[in-house]
Amino acid sequence: MQRFKCNITYDGTHFAGYQVQPGKRTVQGELERALKKLHKGDDIKVTASGRTDAGVHARGQVIHFDSPLNIPIEKWEIALNSLLPDEVAIVGAETVPDDFHVRFDAKGKEYRYFVHRSSRRDPFKRHYAYQYPYPLNTDAIKQAAADLIGTHDFTSFCSAKTEVEDKVRELQEVEVQEKEDMLIFRFRGTGFLYNMVRILAGTLLEVGSGERDPDSMPSVLKEKNRSAAGKTAPPQGLYLWKVFY
Amino acid sequence: MQRFKCNITYDGTHFAGYQVQPGKRTVQGELERALKKLHKGDDIKVTASGRTDAGVHARGQVIHFDSPLNIPIEKWEIALNSLLPDEVAIVGAETVPDDFHVRFDAKGKEYRYFVHRSSRRDPFKRHYAYQYPYPLNTDAIKQAAADLIGTHDFTSFCSAKTEVEDKVRELQEVEVQEKEDMLIFRFRGTGFLYNMVRILAGTLLEVGSGERDPDSMPSVLKEKNRSAAGKTAPPQGLYLWKVFY
Repeated sequence: MQRFKCNITYDGTHFAGYQVQPGKRTVQGELERALKKLHKGDDIKVTASGRTDAGVHARGQVIHFDSPLNIPIEKWEIALNSLLPDEVAIVGAETVPDDFHVRFDAKGKEYRYFVHRSSRRDPFKRHYAYQYPYPLNTDAIKQAAADLIGTHDFTSFCSAKTEVEDKVRELQEVEVQEKEDMLIFRFRGTGFLYNMVRILAGTLLEVGSGERDPDSMPSVLKEKNRSAAGKTAPPQGLYLWKVFY
Repeated sequence: MQRFKCNITYDGTHFAGYQVQPGKRTVQGELERALKKLHKGDDIKVTASGRTDAGVHARGQVIHFDSPLNIPIEKWEIALNSLLPDEVAIVGAETVPDDFHVRFDAKGKEYRYFVHRSSRRDPFKRHYAYQYPYPLNTDAIKQAAADLIGTHDFTSFCSAKTEVEDKVRELQEVEVQEKEDMLIFRFRGTGFLYNMVRILAGTLLEVGSGERDPDSMPSVLKEKNRSAAGKTAPPQGLYLWKVFY
């Protein structure tokens, strides 16, 4: 048995999310289907750095799995890609020690959230960014973003359904970039709670639109209550960009 | 009755082409369905600058139609977009004289063809560019492209099924642009024959790969035979970019 680590990218539009769900088309389901074919019917369990929701994309998701197959490492990418649907691609494979774990060994993650600033919808961006038709004050957004950096209890910024007890996380970077008609949020942190990036993005957009004060983030954090933060931004703007090891 | 001219953009991925076909989902079908709703059940015929095939996109398709409705011109875009699927968008509407015709009055068109130069497939580009994994000599492509500019009989560069008799057209510009991992062909001409842009792109790619001589274009044109040119490049790389009036 050899453990393999692969970087993968996927267009989440037509998936019911990353994780296997009975009767639904998922990224994990497609990966395990491809591996089963390659292993002549044997089930191979795939572990990912974390889940992504329906409609959420990945540029740099990372997975691991164990295989007894004696395929040279440089052939794994080609072999798996030939068995995967076009929406998922393996972009690099390597062997790792047996005790490597793609989730537990992750040192941090980067997510990006894309906002298409336009009153006109663009058919080519509909699945790949959140169209936002109202004016945005990016200076206010940047001011609020700076107050989110650091180690905080992010209870206000995660789904009320989050079951994990310790909601203290470190946000290392929150960058706001303007590129043509796109506003791009870049979040880098040691760990993220359920829906955290989408709630951060949704709350920062409310700051940008003037609905919220740019210096209100410390008090939102302090409330430790989901209802203190803004709306959950929609999934199509979100990309798991990179996992750090 | 008032004649209206609209610029439209569409993602052609999930359409069986522009033109209405019984039992198929088409761009024209969606436009006429939206107009019928707006006109409380009355059929409104839409005329386009030209058809596009299944999977081909448009950034700047132009249509015209006649309507008795007394809607202020600035409301047409919003009204129609609210009735159209996300894949199609009206991006500008204006009134035109009754004798304006979107096809007959067009002075020229610009098409672009996008080639994704990569041995790795990219799930986000799969419907929006032609992935080409082999090395390309862009200088050779540019040399061949220059020989296509001008007024020629393009019989070799159109589908053998083309029924129009006069196959002489003027190609005013053929530009080859490199932008990150994309190679973009820009074709501007007074008129285009069926499949002409895709055959031009396919033939230029064969020049780039070394399968064809960069100075062979004049002889391919001279043969006036479809089999003298290269393969028809696939639809997903093609965009009707602009129509000139």
